[in-house]
This record gives sequence, C-alpha cells and structure tokens, in this order.
Amino acid sequence: MSDLKNKILSMVREDLTEIEHALKQNLNPYLDLISDVASHILFSGGKRLRPLLMILSARICGYKGDMDKTYSTSTIFEYLHAATLLHDDLVDGATLRRGQPVAHSIWGNSITVLTGDFLLARSLSISVKTGLIKVIQIMTKITEDMSQGEIHQLTRMGNLDLTEDEYIEIIRRKTAVLMQGACWTGALIADASEKEEKALAEYGVNLGIAFQMADDLLDYTSDTSILGKEVGADLKEGKLTLPVIYSFKKADSEDRIIMEKIITDKIFSFNDFELLIELLKKYGGLEYTKRLALKHVEKAKNFILFFEPSATKELLLNIADYALVREA
Amino acid sequence: MSDLKNKILSMVREDLTEIEHALKQNLNPYLDLISDVASHILFSGGKRLRPLLMILSARICGYKGDMDKTYSTSTIFEYLHAATLLHDDLVDGATLRRGQPVAHSIWGNSITVLTGDFLLARSLSISVKTGLIKVIQIMTKITEDMSQGEIHQLTRMGNLDLTEDEYIEIIRRKTAVLMQGACWTGALIADASEKEEKALAEYGVNLGIAFQMADDLLDYTSDTSILGKEVGADLKEGKLTLPVIYSFKKADSEDRIIMEKIITDKIFSFNDFELLIELLKKYGGLEYTKRLALKHVEKAKNFILFFEPSATKELLLNIADYALVREA
Repeated sequence: MSDLKNKILSMVREDLTEIEHALKQNLNPYLDLISDVASHILFSGGKRLRPLLMILSARICGYKGDMDKTYSTSTIFEYLHAATLLHDDLVDGATLRRGQPVAHSIWGNSITVLTGDFLLARSLSISVKTGLIKVIQIMTKITEDMSQGEIHQLTRMGNLDLTEDEYIEIIRRKTAVLMQGACWTGALIADASEKEEKALAEYGVNLGIAFQMADDLLDYTSDTSILGKEVGADLKEGKLTLPVIYSFKKADSEDRIIMEKIITDKIFSFNDFELLIELLKKYGGLEYTKRLALKHVEKAKNFILFFEPSATKELLLNIADYALVREA
Repeated sequence: MSDLKNKILSMVREDLTEIEHALKQNLNPYLDLISDVASHILFSGGKRLRPLLMILSARICGYKGDMDKTYSTSTIFEYLHAATLLHDDLVDGATLRRGQPVAHSIWGNSITVLTGDFLLARSLSISVKTGLIKVIQIMTKITEDMSQGEIHQLTRMGNLDLTEDEYIEIIRRKTAVLMQGACWTGALIADASEKEEKALAEYGVNLGIAFQMADDLLDYTSDTSILGKEVGADLKEGKLTLPVIYSFKKADSEDRIIMEKIITDKIFSFNDFELLIELLKKYGGLEYTKRLALKHVEKAKNFILFFEPSATKELLLNIADYALVREA
C-alpha cells in the first residue's frame, strides 16, 4: 500500500467506521434476499470515497450539525454508486468486481436489475430526508446523467471514431457527476457560501474525471490480481478509452491496421494485448492520459486552495493526489 | 369497445391530448437512442391511466392551478410506469407488450435496463419540480416498493406454497402503490384536506389491487390478439396468481397432481392449458378472483362517495368499474 493511502486512511478511520455502520443501518429492505444481493456489492471492499467526499466537504465548510444524520445522508452516494455498479456490470458482461464474482453471475440478471432499482430508490428516499430540495435535485440529475453516460458509451462500443471530447463527456456523466454531487451536497448541508459550494462542486467533477482516467489507465497497466477484475476487460467489451483513442489518432497507417484488428477482434490473445500496450506506449496514449488526469487533479486542488489550512483541506488535497497513484 | 370505455374516453379526451403532449415534451434526453427506446414503450397505446388519476384527483379536490404544469407533473407516473415495464418485461422474459415486440428484443438487455434507469430518474427529476417534499417522498417510496414487490414475486416463482395474503402483498407493492401515489399526489397538489388526501390514496390503492387482479384473470380468460401479449404467459413464467392459488388450495389430491404437473412443466401444451382453465373453473378460482376484485372496486368507490357530485367524481367511479370490464 502506498504511503499516501496509509496517510489518508489513518486520517479518516473514524469516518469510515461511521459510514460503514450507516450503510448497514439504512439499507432496510423487507426481503432478506435484497439484503444479500445489496450487501454483496456494498460490503466487498469499496473505498467509500463518495460518502467520504460528502463528509469532508461539509466539514471544510465548517459544518457542525448532527453527525449521525450526516453519516446517514452520506450513504446516498454509496447506494447510488452500488446501484449503478450492479446495472453496469450486467451491461458490460463483467465477471469480476473487487476480486469477487459479480452479482448477476450469482443471482441472475433479474434479481440484479431489481436490486439495483431498489438501491437507486433507497438512495433517493434517503436524500429526501435531508429536506433540501437542491440536494434531491442534484441526486435525480446525477441519476439521469449516469444512465445517459452509460448508454452513450454503449452506443459507441468498438467505434474507433470516438473522439477525445466525446470520451470526456461520457466519463463526466458516468463517473464525475456523482463525485461532484457528493462534494456539492456536503457544501449544501453545511449551508456554505456560494463560492464554497461552487469550489467543491468543481473539485468533485475534476476529481471524478481524473479518477476515471486513472481507472482507464489501470486497465492497461495493472494486473488482474491487484485490480480485482480482468485486465484488458475494457477492450474486450469494445470500450475505447483515452489511451487507445489518443494512440490510434497518432498512429501511422500500418500500426492503425494492427490496432484496429486487435480492437475489433474481441477475443484477442495475450500476445495481441501486449502488442497493443507497446503501441499505446509508442504513440504516447498512456503518457497523455496520465498527463491529462494530472491536469484535472491539479485543477481540482486549485479550486479548494482558498480554504483556510486544516486537516480536512489537507485530506481533500491528498485524495486528489491519490487518484493517480492508486493501484486498484 | 365497451360502452363504459367509450363514455370514459369521451369525458377525458382533452386531458389525454394534454397528457400525450406533456409526455413528449418532458422526456428530454440528450441521445436520440434513449428517445427511441423510451418512445417505443411510452407511445404504444398505453391507457395513461396513472397520469389521468392524478389529474382527476387534483380536480375533484377543487384544484384550479396552472394546468400546463399539472400535466407535466402527471407524466411522472407514466414515466415511472414505463421504467418498471422495461425492467419487468426483461425480468419476466416477455416477448410481447401491447401487441408489439418488447424493447429488450429489439435493443437488447443493456440499452433496455439503462433506458429504464433514465425514465426512473426522469420521473423523480420532474417530481422534484413540484417543490412538494411529500410528493417526492411518495415517489421514492413507490420506487422502493415496486422493486421489492417484483423481487418478492420472482423469489416465489413456481412455488405452490404462495398464499393469498402473500399474493395481495406482492400486487399491492408492484402495482397498487403507483395508482395510490398518483391519486394521493393529485390531492397534495390541490392542497386538499387530510380527509380528501386519505380518501384518494385509499381509492387508488384499492383500484390498483382490483386492476392487477383483473389483469391476472385476463391471462386465463382473454386471447392473445385482444390481450396484446401471450395468454398463459404468467403461468409459463411460473407466476402464480390468485385464480391458481385459490383453485389449487381447494382442489382434491388427484386434481392437485394434474395442476402441479402443468404448472411446474412450463412448456405445457394448449390442451394442458385448457385443462387447467377447466380446473380453475371447477374449483372457483376465476369466480373467486373476480369477486375479490369487485370487492376492491366497491371499496375504492366507497372511499370517494363523500365528495360532492361532479363530472370528475362520476369519472373516478366509472374508472373503478372499468377495472373489471376491460378486455386488455
């Protein structure tokens, strides 16, 4: 584990314990089966990054309210995240998530779709309890965006015309708006100034974009045992991410033909995959993605620089840096 | 078409036109594909019963507000309904809906799941615009209930232990809470008295139960061309409804064995199905279901009797009666 991760974990240990507790308390289905399926995705080693972002965003804005209620509210971001993971794994035909078989391979598609629906509804139900219309509005908008981002991605599967702008638009919707919403909600709960609200929302969206870019990089640079899911899975699904988009655009016609063959032939061999990674390196796609992710990390950090120095501010800055150094 | 249906239609023509218009106006996705998939389910001859119930409930409580906004609000019940139909058809492995191939047979499971998510989110987004926390609360609770009702049903597929009470609990969640929510929301929008609010909520839930029972009857008494979906489809999925539950409980051991064989053997023949219907008649399952549905219709009507006489009241009473005479 990296030093940075250790440092962050030691600073948020208490928050994580409370979030974990709230996630168990607020699920509240009337059928045991739903509890089983939801728990499989909820309690399989998720980082709790989204609830944590909400808590820290509230805290940096000076929030001093009822922390029990606040931890409950923070679960909406993990429940919604889990709901989309259940549906996305099914949509992607994934087999592993965090080293575990995905829910639909255990319980089948139907139960998985419906448990996703339940978690989505639960998330919105809890958001209503805040009594803050703006928070509920953010949550429903996020849900709209995420489904649209996923569909957008799906319609462009295997399509080498995908542009960098389109890629960014997709990851903004499918990943970044949720982190943005978590940070923004923290500010709203803390009744923060408009300046603080906007800063945290911008921090969140840029962090989210950096996280997704780093995730997309890991699919080419990590290995299955560390990643907890199959390396090269994105490509097997036909999901084209920035390393490929950039390299393909830069490649000469000969290498383009090789890349196109590997990308369209979804049952590529290990050697094919190694060859593709060589080409991603040759044309700078990995490097470019890393650089762009770093740019978003820096942007995220800049947005919150005006806050007074505090442990919470340091944490938010560290979390932004962590987006790029994490291994899974 | 029955006289009752004609009478109702002539009284709501203008409302239906406005609802239709609002359904087109409020969908608002950023991808054409979502529009296509959503339109396939939304504009394929649905009765618009749920939006209509909301409009009529508001009107009977004396609502005189901005009707444009009200028609927009009423779409939340059709969008949520369509979202659950998309997911349920997939869960049920259905092939036809209103005489058309189901969405997942055209666009595949992934697009269908995600368009369902989008419609669900859209529905909740529009409900937020009412600014009424209670309405949003009702909507999120309905969404929780519906997913749980569907999962409950799914876990009891083909299980002849299913009791009448459990059946009613399932149909309450999967169907009746949405009609209840539509009527209740109408009252809330009209800023109705607590008595009116409660009466319309009770009208809605009882109407919903009657509607689902009538639906379950049609699966045994209609034919495919009228129904717009395969007759006997429930049984093929292993979905046990009241006609079967009741008759099986009443049957002698010999007939029970015959019924059990047909029910568990999901690829039963036309003759098997005819034989089963004979047994449902012999043991009174069809008659009993009709009687119980009628009881709920009467209950629904009784709850709104105290309202002053008006065309709207007559309509709501007629709609309750229509639950049992409709053919599809």
